[in-house]
Amino acid sequence: MSEHIGKTGIVVRHIPRAEAALVDELRSFGVATIHEAQGRKGLFAASIRPIQQGTAISGSVVTVLVAPGDNWMFHVAMEQCRPGDILVVAPSSPCTDGYFGDLLATSLKAHGVRALVIDAGVRDTHTLREMGFPVWSRAISAQGTIKETLGSVNLPLVCGGQLVHPGDVVVADDDGVVVVRRSEVPHVVEASRARADLEEQKAVRLANGELGLDIYNMRARLAEKGLRYVDSLEELGD
Amino acid sequence: MSEHIGKTGIVVRHIPRAEAALVDELRSFGVATIHEAQGRKGLFAASIRPIQQGTAISGSVVTVLVAPGDNWMFHVAMEQCRPGDILVVAPSSPCTDGYFGDLLATSLKAHGVRALVIDAGVRDTHTLREMGFPVWSRAISAQGTIKETLGSVNLPLVCGGQLVHPGDVVVADDDGVVVVRRSEVPHVVEASRARADLEEQKAVRLANGELGLDIYNMRARLAEKGLRYVDSLEELGD
Amino acid sequence: MSEHIGKTGIVVRHIPRAEAALVDELRSFGVATIHEAQGRKGLFAASIRPIQQGTAISGSVVTVLVAPGDNWMFHVAMEQCRPGDILVVAPSSPCTDGYFGDLLATSLKAHGVRALVIDAGVRDTHTLREMGFPVWSRAISAQGTIKETLGSVNLPLVCGGQLVHPGDVVVADDDGVVVVRRSEVPHVVEASRARADLEEQKAVRLANGELGLDIYNMRARLAEKGLRYVDSLEELGD
Amino acid sequence: MSEHIGKTGIVVRHIPRAEAALVDELRSFGVATIHEAQGRKGLFAASIRPIQQGTAISGSVVTVLVAPGDNWMFHVAMEQCRPGDILVVAPSSPCTDGYFGDLLATSLKAHGVRALVIDAGVRDTHTLREMGFPVWSRAISAQGTIKETLGSVNLPLVCGGQLVHPGDVVVADDDGVVVVRRSEVPHVVEASRARADLEEQKAVRLANGELGLDIYNMRARLAEKGLRYVDSLEELGD
Amino acid sequence: MSEHIGKTGIVVRHIPRAEAALVDELRSFGVATIHEAQGRKGLFAASIRPIQQGTAISGSVVTVLVAPGDNWMFHVAMEQCRPGDILVVAPSSPCTDGYFGDLLATSLKAHGVRALVIDAGVRDTHTLREMGFPVWSRAISAQGTIKETLGSVNLPLVCGGQLVHPGDVVVADDDGVVVVRRSEVPHVVEASRARADLEEQKAVRLANGELGLDIYNMRARLAEKGLRYVDSLEELGD
Amino acid sequence: MSEHIGKTGIVVRHIPRAEAALVDELRSFGVATIHEAQGRKGLFAASIRPIQQGTAISGSVVTVLVAPGDNWMFHVAMEQCRPGDILVVAPSSPCTDGYFGDLLATSLKAHGVRALVIDAGVRDTHTLREMGFPVWSRAISAQGTIKETLGSVNLPLVCGGQLVHPGDVVVADDDGVVVVRRSEVPHVVEASRARADLEEQKAVRLANGELGLDIYNMRARLAEKGLRYVDSLEELGD
Repeated sequence: MSEHIGKTGIVVRHIPRAEAALVDELRSFGVATIHEAQGRKGLFAASIRPIQQGTAISGSVVTVLVAPGDNWMFHVAMEQCRPGDILVVAPSSPCTDGYFGDLLATSLKAHGVRALVIDAGVRDTHTLREMGFPVWSRAISAQGTIKETLGSVNLPLVCGGQLVHPGDVVVADDDGVVVVRRSEVPHVVEASRARADLEEQKAVRLANGELGLDIYNMRARLAEKGLRYVDSLEELGD
Repeated sequence: MSEHIGKTGIVVRHIPRAEAALVDELRSFGVATIHEAQGRKGLFAASIRPIQQGTAISGSVVTVLVAPGDNWMFHVAMEQCRPGDILVVAPSSPCTDGYFGDLLATSLKAHGVRALVIDAGVRDTHTLREMGFPVWSRAISAQGTIKETLGSVNLPLVCGGQLVHPGDVVVADDDGVVVVRRSEVPHVVEASRARADLEEQKAVRLANGELGLDIYNMRARLAEKGLRYVDSLEELGD
Repeated sequence: MSEHIGKTGIVVRHIPRAEAALVDELRSFGVATIHEAQGRKGLFAASIRPIQQGTAISGSVVTVLVAPGDNWMFHVAMEQCRPGDILVVAPSSPCTDGYFGDLLATSLKAHGVRALVIDAGVRDTHTLREMGFPVWSRAISAQGTIKETLGSVNLPLVCGGQLVHPGDVVVADDDGVVVVRRSEVPHVVEASRARADLEEQKAVRLANGELGLDIYNMRARLAEKGLRYVDSLEELGD
Repeated sequence: MSEHIGKTGIVVRHIPRAEAALVDELRSFGVATIHEAQGRKGLFAASIRPIQQGTAISGSVVTVLVAPGDNWMFHVAMEQCRPGDILVVAPSSPCTDGYFGDLLATSLKAHGVRALVIDAGVRDTHTLREMGFPVWSRAISAQGTIKETLGSVNLPLVCGGQLVHPGDVVVADDDGVVVVRRSEVPHVVEASRARADLEEQKAVRLANGELGLDIYNMRARLAEKGLRYVDSLEELGD
Repeated sequence: MSEHIGKTGIVVRHIPRAEAALVDELRSFGVATIHEAQGRKGLFAASIRPIQQGTAISGSVVTVLVAPGDNWMFHVAMEQCRPGDILVVAPSSPCTDGYFGDLLATSLKAHGVRALVIDAGVRDTHTLREMGFPVWSRAISAQGTIKETLGSVNLPLVCGGQLVHPGDVVVADDDGVVVVRRSEVPHVVEASRARADLEEQKAVRLANGELGLDIYNMRARLAEKGLRYVDSLEELGD
Repeated sequence: MSEHIGKTGIVVRHIPRAEAALVDELRSFGVATIHEAQGRKGLFAASIRPIQQGTAISGSVVTVLVAPGDNWMFHVAMEQCRPGDILVVAPSSPCTDGYFGDLLATSLKAHGVRALVIDAGVRDTHTLREMGFPVWSRAISAQGTIKETLGSVNLPLVCGGQLVHPGDVVVADDDGVVVVRRSEVPHVVEASRARADLEEQKAVRLANGELGLDIYNMRARLAEKGLRYVDSLEELGD
């Protein structure tokens, strides 16, 4: 399947999607927990940032490969979206132009698309926040784009340094964006539940003032590694 | 006139300004629309960012060239400002120091200056937001500056990668900053009105679920360029 | 003492702290004023940014040196913290991983620690803001860290380009972070009071429309340096 | 197969490799030609730069995923290399530490490995150049790394923003790095030959002073798009 | 004239050029001296770097505005070049793609063009060095570009943060790139000669061990500013 | 002593220096070995790069704190230098201007100063290379500087993210720059010798094709950590 990365001129109409209830549940755990629960993989580069604060989303990925400075494929992709989807867009070479603004957001919203994740720029950010259409992007720029060159829709691509397939699930919040392979969604949901439960228990003990040193039994291992306590800097000498 | 770019030790007292009503109307369109309406030019580099959110401004430009780490010329510029102006400031070499803070903002506000756009750093950002004095800058830094070296006021300069003349109009919002040549203001206002009207009509259709593919008649041209629809990735083979 | 910079495997238990009332008073002046009052030194690099807006803090520094991608020392440091402290954390080589999240914040909060300043990444930023635990960091990243390698606690270190000793005072607000040497706290408080008073007086005059040119008697010195006023660009000729 | 991206603790012993003669021939075309010949895909981010000048290489990829600041997996990978291979290394989170130096290069050279491509830092660069062991890296840093955490060898990974499988072919020169899918090697060799031939013919005509405008018949299409020739700027008016 | 910045679809055929002998003489002074001699203006951003070492050039500017990822205008510009010219190219929005390679260089060389300065990327850098065609660029990238969108030739533009007019003179060496206004060439040549002479005299005295402190009579002014000499750090106390 | 960091207006005349023979011997080990030998500390940020290739130096540090865009203190520092010294220069706020060029290099060379390390910009780089005066800097820029503001000479400062005292020893080569505390020089020389010997022995074995896995007995520990060998990706299943 990865043979198709980087190809242009192709639209794949039917993509598999994960079970909606599980996709939705993933949103509740947040990016950090899911990243941990699936073995610390799938995290997008930290340069992909939300344009809003306090919003978390999850959804099935529709991928869009675009030429630098050319947003034509957004219109093609729109027709392939279903309610609950998230557009994941990457340019074929680095570009910070404003590929996306309020008109495209109006259209995506009308079709039930939940969010945009783009390794490039967006514009009309004030209106996007007012509309409540969430976006994670590499840049904010009013720079317009053209409609001359074909890209592709629903081929696998690399976005934010991560391989993403159409139908994978993306979760995004104030911390960033993580991708979950479609086939691993049930397992990751379960692992996230377990991790969230565990964290809740730990949070109670930590809030009561217990030390992580004791909760996690770290003292012996620290001593083994040679950690040395001194009363003051003077004790260390020069 | 561009012969004077980069000169120091000069203050130009009288600059032409665009018609106030048109300058004010420009604010209502936003940076992205104006950038489009004037043929996709005049956009400042995306590295010039607002320190506040949700504020849009427009005004006539008073330019200030400053030495690196030296904000002396702000005081000289102040005397040349009129209500409705915007200071556009560029350092003669790259600098992120905090050239501007609450005292200078108090003074600018007292003289009716609407905003600051600076290709360098500012400080006292919390107070600036509380005062409601809008700023677009390259950096936030508390680093103080000195008053030793002359720059210039109201000579043309390059700020955020764009040539700006005194008396040009600058519009800024959450997306960034755009400059409109003074002589082009009437034309750009008109073009912006037309574009805003058109966008409103499109927004209604898109909100109703119509596809851009159909509204803009893209299907034929996409087919011509060779866009190919397949039902699934498998159909593509290896 | 600086001989100990970069050493690992050591925890210093007892550190001197500045007088609590003075530490608290420093918070009220803000980073820009303190930076000026102490002779324009101690300012952290502008790349260390707050994850929240509108919060100002001050406190006594507990230093933590950590390995890249390894947050083990946070747990060790926790035991050395007292109410009113601030953790100042630097990695031994550049790293943007998310060293710190809501569990560690819960623990720090339970022990009265006021804030975290870290020359690396943090995660769970939405929860941190909801909890009201303030953080200044170089990056936001959900990337998890491990617990394998010793660092040190309460040795001097360089964070954000500034030398910081345990027991020094750190002040942070929307502008960034500044460090005040412990021994200089009384002097810096006094100098900050004087500066704040002076600024208040100036602010009144500036708000009344007086020009800095006149308040600071700048005209003569500007003329001496050769500043030349012309009525228009045309007057300059080519 | 991409399900395995980001997994750790695994070494794959046997990987398929492309035909040696074809791999070697790819080197002769250079990165730019190959990138074009395979449809403008596979190019690594421009931030991966050679530490030497004037060297071009090609080889079969052995992939190595490493933890930040931890080069343990290099030793594991070494045993899996065959003469003609190239190590392609990515850290599991961004890191500029010096993972690789003269000792590891000595070992790779002894086993016939041709080069290193790493999305992180290297050191001993002077010696590496003297030894003639070519390296493409994101950074140069003497910062040492540890051996505590497992990564993986010969699983697919993303390096320099490109998906790379073990057994794919990498070509690198002064322009950067490009990956060719193993299955596409014969096709890309052929397309590169054709392209190189064509370029040679064009080069002769261009060297003789013919214009690209004429060789490529661009004039009509430029006119169609509206290109307008004027004799001077004055002719444009204001 | 600056009204035309950012316009597309226009080629200006006839541009004024400075006297050839003066243009050539400028090369001999180097970028740093010329930048000083003309009052410290005209210096391109430091991010525009040479791809070769030890080469200095000067020439008359032919400007080219290009769309992001689109190098069509190079072919149009070629026809407007005369021997002794230098192409100065800027993209209409930030782009690091490889706009220029060995074929275009062959063509430029055949027409006597001396160099390329581009605020974007180039490729085939090894061949360019072998051919001896000098380039200053923002990036090196093998990424190919298309030929779909009009830009302009011989309109003023901003490149590397500097306003450049067709017919201005550009000088470039290992330090970077500087632009000299065409009308100022005679004056800048003269000022550069004077400065070069003066520097030569100073160099002799400095090489003999005389101190700048004495040659430039700095001691009195340093003392006035309050410079204080102490015998040791201890003398400063705490 | 660190109380004096950031102070201006002071020159310390007499500084202690390490034993010349040991300082010279340090050069022979290179930056990577010394960094390891002294416990992986003292390494400057990777952004400080050599302007030449293949040169290694060591020397006693004379520190210079300079204002942004102001190189006055170089002349003051010159008088405090002795043969064998190295200037280590940091600006009081970030600056990439060209503080240093061929005239200052001529003067430094005449006084036996061996090199410059500067967390800012330099110019005349072609001449510096021809003169054989080695420089490590953050930037190359022809931008001139002024002489208006006092800094200091021979106070401790932070350069490249490392605390440096006057009299410390700096070693620099193609990999970067490392500082060795003066008091630790004898110990670091010894440890470097031991490390260099050890590396030489290992190099012989590695050159003979022995694996690091065996030389360092890594197999057992890898197995303990759970490293798993599979014959092919297929064996892993999905």
